[in-house]
Amino acid sequence: MILICKANKSRLKIAVLNGPNLNLTGVRQKEIYGATSLHQIEEQLTNRFPDIDWSFYQSNVEGELINELHRLNNQCDGIILNAGGYTHTSIALGDAVSAVDTPVIEVHLSNILGREIFRQHSFISPYALGIISGFGAAGYELAAVHFLNHLKPTH
Amino acid sequence: MILICKANKSRLKIAVLNGPNLNLTGVRQKEIYGATSLHQIEEQLTNRFPDIDWSFYQSNVEGELINELHRLNNQCDGIILNAGGYTHTSIALGDAVSAVDTPVIEVHLSNILGREIFRQHSFISPYALGIISGFGAAGYELAAVHFLNHLKPTH
Amino acid sequence: MILICKANKSRLKIAVLNGPNLNLTGVRQKEIYGATSLHQIEEQLTNRFPDIDWSFYQSNVEGELINELHRLNNQCDGIILNAGGYTHTSIALGDAVSAVDTPVIEVHLSNILGREIFRQHSFISPYALGIISGFGAAGYELAAVHFLNHLKPTH
Amino acid sequence: MILICKANKSRLKIAVLNGPNLNLTGVRQKEIYGATSLHQIEEQLTNRFPDIDWSFYQSNVEGELINELHRLNNQCDGIILNAGGYTHTSIALGDAVSAVDTPVIEVHLSNILGREIFRQHSFISPYALGIISGFGAAGYELAAVHFLNHLKPTH
Amino acid sequence: MILICKANKSRLKIAVLNGPNLNLTGVRQKEIYGATSLHQIEEQLTNRFPDIDWSFYQSNVEGELINELHRLNNQCDGIILNAGGYTHTSIALGDAVSAVDTPVIEVHLSNILGREIFRQHSFISPYALGIISGFGAAGYELAAVHFLNHLKPTH
Amino acid sequence: MILICKANKSRLKIAVLNGPNLNLTGVRQKEIYGATSLHQIEEQLTNRFPDIDWSFYQSNVEGELINELHRLNNQCDGIILNAGGYTHTSIALGDAVSAVDTPVIEVHLSNILGREIFRQHSFISPYALGIISGFGAAGYELAAVHFLNHLKPTH
Amino acid sequence: MILICKANKSRLKIAVLNGPNLNLTGVRQKEIYGATSLHQIEEQLTNRFPDIDWSFYQSNVEGELINELHRLNNQCDGIILNAGGYTHTSIALGDAVSAVDTPVIEVHLSNILGREIFRQHSFISPYALGIISGFGAAGYELAAVHFLNHLKPTH
Amino acid sequence: MILICKANKSRLKIAVLNGPNLNLTGVRQKEIYGATSLHQIEEQLTNRFPDIDWSFYQSNVEGELINELHRLNNQCDGIILNAGGYTHTSIALGDAVSAVDTPVIEVHLSNILGREIFRQHSFISPYALGIISGFGAAGYELAAVHFLNHLKPTH
Amino acid sequence: MILICKANKSRLKIAVLNGPNLNLTGVRQKEIYGATSLHQIEEQLTNRFPDIDWSFYQSNVEGELINELHRLNNQCDGIILNAGGYTHTSIALGDAVSAVDTPVIEVHLSNILGREIFRQHSFISPYALGIISGFGAAGYELAAVHFLNHLKPTH
Amino acid sequence: MILICKANKSRLKIAVLNGPNLNLTGVRQKEIYGATSLHQIEEQLTNRFPDIDWSFYQSNVEGELINELHRLNNQCDGIILNAGGYTHTSIALGDAVSAVDTPVIEVHLSNILGREIFRQHSFISPYALGIISGFGAAGYELAAVHFLNHLKPTH
Amino acid sequence: MILICKANKSRLKIAVLNGPNLNLTGVRQKEIYGATSLHQIEEQLTNRFPDIDWSFYQSNVEGELINELHRLNNQCDGIILNAGGYTHTSIALGDAVSAVDTPVIEVHLSNILGREIFRQHSFISPYALGIISGFGAAGYELAAVHFLNHLKPTH
Amino acid sequence: MILICKANKSRLKIAVLNGPNLNLTGVRQKEIYGATSLHQIEEQLTNRFPDIDWSFYQSNVEGELINELHRLNNQCDGIILNAGGYTHTSIALGDAVSAVDTPVIEVHLSNILGREIFRQHSFISPYALGIISGFGAAGYELAAVHFLNHLKPTH
Repeated sequence: MILICKANKSRLKIAVLNGPNLNLTGVRQKEIYGATSLHQIEEQLTNRFPDIDWSFYQSNVEGELINELHRLNNQCDGIILNAGGYTHTSIALGDAVSAVDTPVIEVHLSNILGREIFRQHSFISPYALGIISGFGAAGYELAAVHFLNHLKPTH
Repeated sequence: MILICKANKSRLKIAVLNGPNLNLTGVRQKEIYGATSLHQIEEQLTNRFPDIDWSFYQSNVEGELINELHRLNNQCDGIILNAGGYTHTSIALGDAVSAVDTPVIEVHLSNILGREIFRQHSFISPYALGIISGFGAAGYELAAVHFLNHLKPTH
Repeated sequence: MILICKANKSRLKIAVLNGPNLNLTGVRQKEIYGATSLHQIEEQLTNRFPDIDWSFYQSNVEGELINELHRLNNQCDGIILNAGGYTHTSIALGDAVSAVDTPVIEVHLSNILGREIFRQHSFISPYALGIISGFGAAGYELAAVHFLNHLKPTH
Repeated sequence: MILICKANKSRLKIAVLNGPNLNLTGVRQKEIYGATSLHQIEEQLTNRFPDIDWSFYQSNVEGELINELHRLNNQCDGIILNAGGYTHTSIALGDAVSAVDTPVIEVHLSNILGREIFRQHSFISPYALGIISGFGAAGYELAAVHFLNHLKPTH
Repeated sequence: MILICKANKSRLKIAVLNGPNLNLTGVRQKEIYGATSLHQIEEQLTNRFPDIDWSFYQSNVEGELINELHRLNNQCDGIILNAGGYTHTSIALGDAVSAVDTPVIEVHLSNILGREIFRQHSFISPYALGIISGFGAAGYELAAVHFLNHLKPTH
Repeated sequence: MILICKANKSRLKIAVLNGPNLNLTGVRQKEIYGATSLHQIEEQLTNRFPDIDWSFYQSNVEGELINELHRLNNQCDGIILNAGGYTHTSIALGDAVSAVDTPVIEVHLSNILGREIFRQHSFISPYALGIISGFGAAGYELAAVHFLNHLKPTH
Repeated sequence: MILICKANKSRLKIAVLNGPNLNLTGVRQKEIYGATSLHQIEEQLTNRFPDIDWSFYQSNVEGELINELHRLNNQCDGIILNAGGYTHTSIALGDAVSAVDTPVIEVHLSNILGREIFRQHSFISPYALGIISGFGAAGYELAAVHFLNHLKPTH
Repeated sequence: MILICKANKSRLKIAVLNGPNLNLTGVRQKEIYGATSLHQIEEQLTNRFPDIDWSFYQSNVEGELINELHRLNNQCDGIILNAGGYTHTSIALGDAVSAVDTPVIEVHLSNILGREIFRQHSFISPYALGIISGFGAAGYELAAVHFLNHLKPTH
Repeated sequence: MILICKANKSRLKIAVLNGPNLNLTGVRQKEIYGATSLHQIEEQLTNRFPDIDWSFYQSNVEGELINELHRLNNQCDGIILNAGGYTHTSIALGDAVSAVDTPVIEVHLSNILGREIFRQHSFISPYALGIISGFGAAGYELAAVHFLNHLKPTH
Repeated sequence: MILICKANKSRLKIAVLNGPNLNLTGVRQKEIYGATSLHQIEEQLTNRFPDIDWSFYQSNVEGELINELHRLNNQCDGIILNAGGYTHTSIALGDAVSAVDTPVIEVHLSNILGREIFRQHSFISPYALGIISGFGAAGYELAAVHFLNHLKPTH
Repeated sequence: MILICKANKSRLKIAVLNGPNLNLTGVRQKEIYGATSLHQIEEQLTNRFPDIDWSFYQSNVEGELINELHRLNNQCDGIILNAGGYTHTSIALGDAVSAVDTPVIEVHLSNILGREIFRQHSFISPYALGIISGFGAAGYELAAVHFLNHLKPTH
Repeated sequence: MILICKANKSRLKIAVLNGPNLNLTGVRQKEIYGATSLHQIEEQLTNRFPDIDWSFYQSNVEGELINELHRLNNQCDGIILNAGGYTHTSIALGDAVSAVDTPVIEVHLSNILGREIFRQHSFISPYALGIISGFGAAGYELAAVHFLNHLKPTH
């Protein structure tokens, strides 16, 4: 379900980008990632934040996430990015976030700083507005709350 | 201003613990930590979340933060902890968080994963519910939002 | 040549996934990877194990390998995965293997533990049934032998 | 603008491959990467080296760069590769360069040896003819000069 | 319960210092630290070793443990120190032990050499008589046995 | 049960060497190493591969494994070596494998690349034909299959 | 002097295993290891703990220590192990301790955590009941005290 | 002896802060730290620099040193800080120095760059005016000389 | 052959500095460094770039290279520096490059990023205009081309 | 300006050795090293400490600094050494300082402990009387003050 | 061929100990270890140094080398030890050398400092008189020369 | 005393190169380096090996040692090199040794493998015939013995 940020100017436009394996959220390792599916997470965001124009995108391909970040730049008011496993290995994705003017909030379902050592580093964080990690699906909502409180519609 | 969690049972009780140098927030390095003082942050929380019974504590002494965590255990519904510089060095403080049953949200004003390498590790995170880092004073509010959405008053 | 696992129920269904540069097997660095082409390897597997329903897939794109793993999950009885260079760098691919219920055997043409230090680590292994490395094209056959001995057709 | 090396035999055929985020050259972080767009760089190469048959390709997808390298092998006389952020993380891309017989020159806009520590390593270099790093858009021209001086048209 | 070493000269005087979170022994993570409370440990020591003049001290504050070590120096015949989490991080506490003439035995409830890597180093050990680790509450008793066998009352 | 490779010339001669603690297979940590005893593994090999002349040896002594490797050199057609814990620490054993002309297949019951970091390195692998790890007792059988397919009796 | 645990059922049976160079105790580097010979240590244990059935073993051969651990398993009530230099290098010996059901106490004459960095790690500790290090010959006695207090004769 | 900087405006006000174990100077390890007591050091400073208003503070508690730094900020003309063992471990204390506008000179009795590796790093230095290390008690005097030469009374 | 930059103002003045062992170019390890002698390289530069005033210097002494860099500062329009083995070890030489206003291009005969790990770091690069590495003697020519394209005579 | 220590016996003789690039002090990177030239620093020392016989030496050659240290040994009462970039890399220079009986004070213009990680180590410090770092040109004066207070003329 | 040092008192007694795989010298990897067999090396030593009473021992078992070192202590005038692969891994063997009063010269056939990184460390060297490495069989002779020049017969 | 290898053809010509601080041998740290001066060492070599034409050179300058190595190449039959502290830091000197055809024996007075960790690496060894370390002045003689036994005069 991709609906690009193009609606009326009085509404905030937020894009949600999810990276590798997040399409399996709710299915894989529920004790770590929770039982809510990605589709349900997207629905909940739409329902709970009806004043926001939502755009959702998920890909398992690193370069497609970079493409999407490039495309969204200056098309939305804010971006919520959960880069999954690419968070810890992708200099290229970090560079893409740094190249984007639209503010980006980094979200993770699990608390990456409390997991394996190779998950405790992020190439996204140096260029992100902030990180929300460990709150499961609720992390996206906190990011939405922050954008609502601090951004104004500009498109 | 210490007001311990003891009010009526129908209200959520949240304690906010701030660690070393956070008493200087709004004064020191404003480009990193923002221009709002700790006192103002506490007032804003009280004003914006009037349904919560707030308790505030700040200390520069590692052991006093541990004492306070011990004391708050099972006296509050949730704890918001910004351990400042002790986050990265204090095994003892991490152990204290792990010993506490009350859920703890870790908050940082700046995005610790995007700063010096020695700030990119947290002894708190393995035992915290989640981390919110890089949103300045607004990080405490996001933590409050999360507690409001997911906790019920129990005391 | 992609033929998806869908044949009759009395036969074992095995998928073979090959990652980056393995399409050049038999062409590049024959002293390391052998002189048999990937196509020949696939033909040999089909000929030598006629009781197995084979499915073959190769991609140089990390995310497409993840997609394929997701798609194959519970569609086959076993997966043989040679992730090539992504073996050593892709947390995302390792996560995909961990998310898949179908048993996965990790195969490498060369003996990765005896090569450059950066090839001596695998993000796949923690989630794989086992690893067979260094036997060239014969490694796929050993994996097939193991599946034949220990799996029953379930689809 | 992809025009494959296929022109008359008396002219040198050079392919230029650019990796992630290089499509934003001239737009992002101009103080590091310069103000010339990738399109302009390609035009300048075409104009200044009219005796060369140029082929240009850019992708943000690691595997597509590998695909292109495979495809170009023995179709061109030389390849100029700027793998961007994948330079430092992609064993798979390095393997692809090592699998290619056509000589490859590694180019970077910025001087990677003088930047963050994680940019100071290259998986491409062990298999490249040489590296030209830090000259901005001019680096591609120096590579072209070198090919002109040392290669003969062979296709 | 602080009773300073000052009793009659014919009895051995032993001080027990416990560091951060040890006041929660018997309450927190019983599978690691055991179910006996610190108070019970102290009572057992008093009961089982009636010929020793015991002095007990616990603090969560690193500097107060240093203060107490300074104060006890040459006031007791032996010191039993469980520095908890400060064991692994406090150069200052190690310096304090090195500055004290009274023999110090290092005790830990769990076996620190068999736990997380960050617990496998001790700044205390280079200056301690010896270490007893992993015997739970019984570790203090072994230390007492050793002092009884090898020390004479001197105050 | 040591029966040295000396039988008739038309049969393949394979020696199986097992290192430290493998005599306890089937007894210790069954969830990791399986419930089949070493004796049973040896019987199964003899039964399932009746065309092979088998020779079995186990020792907990590093130097005796080296002795045995030296003695077997050029006396057998192939050697299957599970060096247990010495795999990760013994340069001397690796040197012995490198000194032996007879091809050696390295086998491990558990998948060493997916376990503790200190088990993820092998001093054997650089000199072994290949590694089969994680298949429990079946790993020896896969090694036998490979030898059967690729070796001819020579003694 | 090897006397195996076989005496009457009402007495505790404890085996003492000493590793490499401990046969020279009392002779070599007395300032580190003390002036009491291993024979004297064994005599003192026998004399001071007459209610225990003692069994003593020393070997400089890593594999023989493993053999002895295997043999003692379930033949004694407790094992006191000083693995000397093998403590820090022997994964195999650590595995043997982990394979043994009889409780093992790790003892060292010197305080290994206060010596050279390569002596500060133990492959034994993760599987030992506890460690007693730095008390010289008295360390064995403390281990005996602990076994006497916490074990009952079972053979 | 705490006498706060408040005297007449024509005199320079310098505060001296000493950290953990420095109260034992002259008593502990005299071969490293010298035989002059902290009290004597303070007296000598007062006597040799009669034109300076001196303020002295010592604490073994990390947080109290932070408190004192905060309190002294803009109350004195210069601060001389010997943070002892906290120098090498306390990010929090370093942050406090960075938060203070008053110039801070870091002093150490011994030459920390020539001692154990864990003493060769300082979290104070990045924010200090300079470091004087290895001159014993005379280091404080050199700091005083520097302040006298380069500061003017401002309070 | 040292001819200092002093010729007529309408010509570009370029100095070439070669470091240790480069006087043996063409003699030592020709498979790595090529068969052209340093003298021939200098002659070729003079012949192929007749519009440039060339100055050549070679020394095996680190400090003399520093002296020469200091001396050349603002006397030439550009400097081509091949610091040989000092590239990887000399902080002092790096500091000298940073102290020089004249633009410096770093050249290496072999591709240092593809050789031993200790050759993959450069203390020169952070202060150099760019690096050209792996093109043998042709690297100096590429540097000359770049200077010709981008510099104007100023002396 | 070299004037060797040879004047009348009643005056202190101090030699000042400056290493690589310090001849550019006052010219290069003034924000780090200050605007005073080395010549001015030497003049100021001569003027401000007229009772000292000064000897000044500067070289960019590591071995000449070693030569000069050897030559000065027992010819002066004290040596002030700023080894510049060699401080961090020269074992040989550190050995020279250790071989010299005359006391040596290590001085640095900038605070090396607060700069790049490769500048935070000193091979000089283990053998120097002490270090004064970060005070710019004033550091030499502090060293002179210390020598004046603690040395007597001996030549 | 073991002939223990017991001959007449006027002759020097030297023992030669060779460790793992050295029994294969002359057979394995001749390009590294030479073509002379261990037996020939021993014969050459006997022939070329007829005034020495030689004793030869070889074992592949680490502990037997330790046993032999213990046994030889004070029975010979000098020991030549080539510990082979145990050189780099055996703390226990190093401890044995340190426990032996008889001077020990460490010999290696190949130059261990010029080989793989894991062969560049020696646990023997800190306790050996010296090391002779890289001279093949001639290394033993150099050790004999040294003993002849510097030792007198004492038994 | 430099006498270059040029004498009659029937004699072996050996050059001895000594690096930094070796001119102080016999003076500095005698407990490490011995009491014989470099001059005496050279005389002893001349006296004890009268059939060799000796050439001696010492310099504290890294580059002069390189110069001398270049000059001696093919002028002598063998070179004995003690590079002192440059051994551990000089890639350039190692490159010079690798560029020289004349065989080089590396000698050290002390046993570098048994000293500080930074002295345990050699950039010379990979290119040297062998290393003799720890025998003091006698090390040069052993090198001479080896050359005498294995070289023939060629000049």
